[in-house]
Amino acid sequence: MARSITLRELARLLDAELQGDPAYEIKALSTLQDAGPGELAFLASSAYRRHLTGTRAGAIILAPGDTAGFAGNKLVTGNPYLAYARASGLFDRAPMPSPGIHSASVVDESAEIAPSASIGPLAVIEAGVRIGEQCVIGPGCFVGRDSVIGSHSRLFANVNLYHGVILGSRVRIHSGAVIGSDGFGFATGNDGWVKIHQLGGVEIGDDVEIGAGTTIDRGALGNTVIGSGVIIDNQVQIAHNVKVGDNSALAGCVAIAGSAVIGRNCVLAGGVGIVGHVELCDGVTVTARSMITKSIARPGSYSSGTPFSETAEWRRNAVRFGQLDRIAQKLSRLDRRGNKK
Amino acid sequence: MARSITLRELARLLDAELQGDPAYEIKALSTLQDAGPGELAFLASSAYRRHLTGTRAGAIILAPGDTAGFAGNKLVTGNPYLAYARASGLFDRAPMPSPGIHSASVVDESAEIAPSASIGPLAVIEAGVRIGEQCVIGPGCFVGRDSVIGSHSRLFANVNLYHGVILGSRVRIHSGAVIGSDGFGFATGNDGWVKIHQLGGVEIGDDVEIGAGTTIDRGALGNTVIGSGVIIDNQVQIAHNVKVGDNSALAGCVAIAGSAVIGRNCVLAGGVGIVGHVELCDGVTVTARSMITKSIARPGSYSSGTPFSETAEWRRNAVRFGQLDRIAQKLSRLDRRGNKK
Amino acid sequence: MARSITLRELARLLDAELQGDPAYEIKALSTLQDAGPGELAFLASSAYRRHLTGTRAGAIILAPGDTAGFAGNKLVTGNPYLAYARASGLFDRAPMPSPGIHSASVVDESAEIAPSASIGPLAVIEAGVRIGEQCVIGPGCFVGRDSVIGSHSRLFANVNLYHGVILGSRVRIHSGAVIGSDGFGFATGNDGWVKIHQLGGVEIGDDVEIGAGTTIDRGALGNTVIGSGVIIDNQVQIAHNVKVGDNSALAGCVAIAGSAVIGRNCVLAGGVGIVGHVELCDGVTVTARSMITKSIARPGSYSSGTPFSETAEWRRNAVRFGQLDRIAQKLSRLDRRGNKK
Repeated sequence: MARSITLRELARLLDAELQGDPAYEIKALSTLQDAGPGELAFLASSAYRRHLTGTRAGAIILAPGDTAGFAGNKLVTGNPYLAYARASGLFDRAPMPSPGIHSASVVDESAEIAPSASIGPLAVIEAGVRIGEQCVIGPGCFVGRDSVIGSHSRLFANVNLYHGVILGSRVRIHSGAVIGSDGFGFATGNDGWVKIHQLGGVEIGDDVEIGAGTTIDRGALGNTVIGSGVIIDNQVQIAHNVKVGDNSALAGCVAIAGSAVIGRNCVLAGGVGIVGHVELCDGVTVTARSMITKSIARPGSYSSGTPFSETAEWRRNAVRFGQLDRIAQKLSRLDRRGNKK
Repeated sequence: MARSITLRELARLLDAELQGDPAYEIKALSTLQDAGPGELAFLASSAYRRHLTGTRAGAIILAPGDTAGFAGNKLVTGNPYLAYARASGLFDRAPMPSPGIHSASVVDESAEIAPSASIGPLAVIEAGVRIGEQCVIGPGCFVGRDSVIGSHSRLFANVNLYHGVILGSRVRIHSGAVIGSDGFGFATGNDGWVKIHQLGGVEIGDDVEIGAGTTIDRGALGNTVIGSGVIIDNQVQIAHNVKVGDNSALAGCVAIAGSAVIGRNCVLAGGVGIVGHVELCDGVTVTARSMITKSIARPGSYSSGTPFSETAEWRRNAVRFGQLDRIAQKLSRLDRRGNKK
Repeated sequence: MARSITLRELARLLDAELQGDPAYEIKALSTLQDAGPGELAFLASSAYRRHLTGTRAGAIILAPGDTAGFAGNKLVTGNPYLAYARASGLFDRAPMPSPGIHSASVVDESAEIAPSASIGPLAVIEAGVRIGEQCVIGPGCFVGRDSVIGSHSRLFANVNLYHGVILGSRVRIHSGAVIGSDGFGFATGNDGWVKIHQLGGVEIGDDVEIGAGTTIDRGALGNTVIGSGVIIDNQVQIAHNVKVGDNSALAGCVAIAGSAVIGRNCVLAGGVGIVGHVELCDGVTVTARSMITKSIARPGSYSSGTPFSETAEWRRNAVRFGQLDRIAQKLSRLDRRGNKK
């Protein structure tokens, strides 16, 4: 939220070595192509070094091996992308509401709201809720009975927490997300489906980010559990009793079925699907849109799906997919016949 | 919502045979692993019989063939999972709001709200709406003009019903769901897309459950129709003029394109896609993430997709998918050549 | 919103030739099967000409070549589907709120709201927002600081615009959509993920429709940009810094990863996935559920995936997918062996 920061100060905050004018003032972050005077850009990889030519950036974050390519002010660091991430927080001017409970919110008198927390207009806070210091609850949010939100957490506008949802500290949840809805549990009765009431809750650790429109169901008996440091993108679906280990990343539209267990430091790329009741060990990466149908006990990268091509060509190959077993058997017969000759 | 129930009473309510102390009091449901004294667990399948050893459960629901494995109180029934489902409703302590219209809601004076219904804070109920006995409309819900909600239905917080949406009785809709938004209909004009106004509505039967973030569009001319007893999980997308037959189940992230017809007692597993204008007969099951591109006239199970493997191995096979037609043709040539020799 | 329109007037408005009674009054649109007297139906394609037999429609929109099939009133035009689209707007009776700011909304005094705009109950409009003439902001919407909405735009109930989102004119956004949430950007730090604050915004052109539950993230540095005339269905996910060209169509559940560029006049069918940083030229069509992993430089239709079949048969073929590279190599060996003989 700074208006401007000197390069001397930036070098200190980003733990980078300054080559240039320590009093030079930076007002904003930008890309190498768009940056002008007073703006800070970054070169995340030597592969983009050509963009150094012609940039008008007031200063650049770059790696020691790339300094020769730029004559102006430089902040030199072994990990320019990480330094950029840190700098991004310094120049974030997103509005931050002031503490206090908005007069147009509906807060149960038994709720415990820390004095430094902000409750936005038209938020509804039910009985028994506890909200920690420096929290920001956005307009239109619903926080159900007995839910607990640790300090420095933020719910953007129109986030829904059902009853009995426990959030750690520094958790950020984007608009439209729903935490604690009923898991999809039904038994087969004589006249149709019989609902299994979902009696568990949801526990979310510290430093978790949850994207817009993401849904996390409450557990059937025990809790659905999201570890600390987990990052979750938009429109992710997490079913009841799933466990996600610390520091795992779930990209947009990932879907995890009931009771699946995802280890720590896993990366599920966009649109990955995980069937119910399987377990992925720590350190598993799954590439975009792949579907995991069995447990994985060895760290590494996993994939499914087919490559794309022009539709006419794809169709010819796709038809053959439906003949694959016959093709393979025919090949085996040919092979055997060849061997007999 | 009971505080505790005797085993005598439970046996009666669950239609099970009690073997043990009729006066023993049960306070909660739990799993075999987690249950302690005063808690009821269940053994849904003999495959998990090993969990009977060492359980501290105060009583167990199990099948006649499994009674030998446990010395304590038993509720014996031919379908333990169904009995567990019924028991779950007895021990559901989710908060239930009291009847009445919250002073911070906005209800049009022409709306007819049953006296036993509950309208939460910051809900908006438009003109001509009718809401039946024992309904609960959660905080922040929007119910558009002339929509009708049958008795004993519940909208959790921030559910959206557009105008002209008809819900049956005992319908439950979770947060963030949207019912009655415009179908995606456009004609090609000279200067781009020309919107086809969506003049139909949405009809939903009795005993339907709809998950968080699910969207059901209104019809273009006629209605989109969801039968009675249908269960729909989170983030399901149902396009305009779709029909879903009674007692079908749609798991998370299923997507059904316009005018498709799903029969009765169908089960679409997580992430299944159905293209527009096809028809699935009664009793079709589709496995997770499969894509159905043609009508299905015979009950049974259907699938598409490829198995997953380590990425390096998958890549070798995926490349070959793009050569499949050539591979099949080469094999045929070889076969013919072999036959000529 | 007309109560009824004469065929004379309809012929003029739809630019069609009237064959029949100019004074005949039409009260509603319907399908050929359902239409009765006083209702207008349409025949979009000669393929459905059999439905002309037995229809009770008061008048029919059809092409010159199909007039012989129907004896009643006809509106004849070269493009009946387009004429139907235009007629649909004439008979749309969806409720339209009156101008003015509802007393139960929360509007910052610095916001500039055009006098002809309508702000619904429980909407929250933050400081610095500008809302144009004839706009309708639905109940429970959130419009964040400094966002701008052009004239004649409509946000249905519970739409979320974060700060700094710019909408053109005649933009329609359905319930539950979220525009301007944080892009999913994180750097790898020593102790886990380090958030990259998302400092860009979102720009949306004129005449754009956005479906229920769709999410469009703000840019990391520059803006995420949606061109004019773009139509977007429900539950679409558009990541940070994506560009979508004018008049492209994105059907339900499409997901586009960060910094991807979609050209003009592209059509992405339901559930299509686009990986990050690729570029699709103008005029690309992608069939349902296909996954695009590389840039496409030539207009045309593209696909991936496998056909569906009964599960037992699919399983046999799917297993062979995992052996494809070995199968292809075996075939090559056989071929070489055959050639040597």
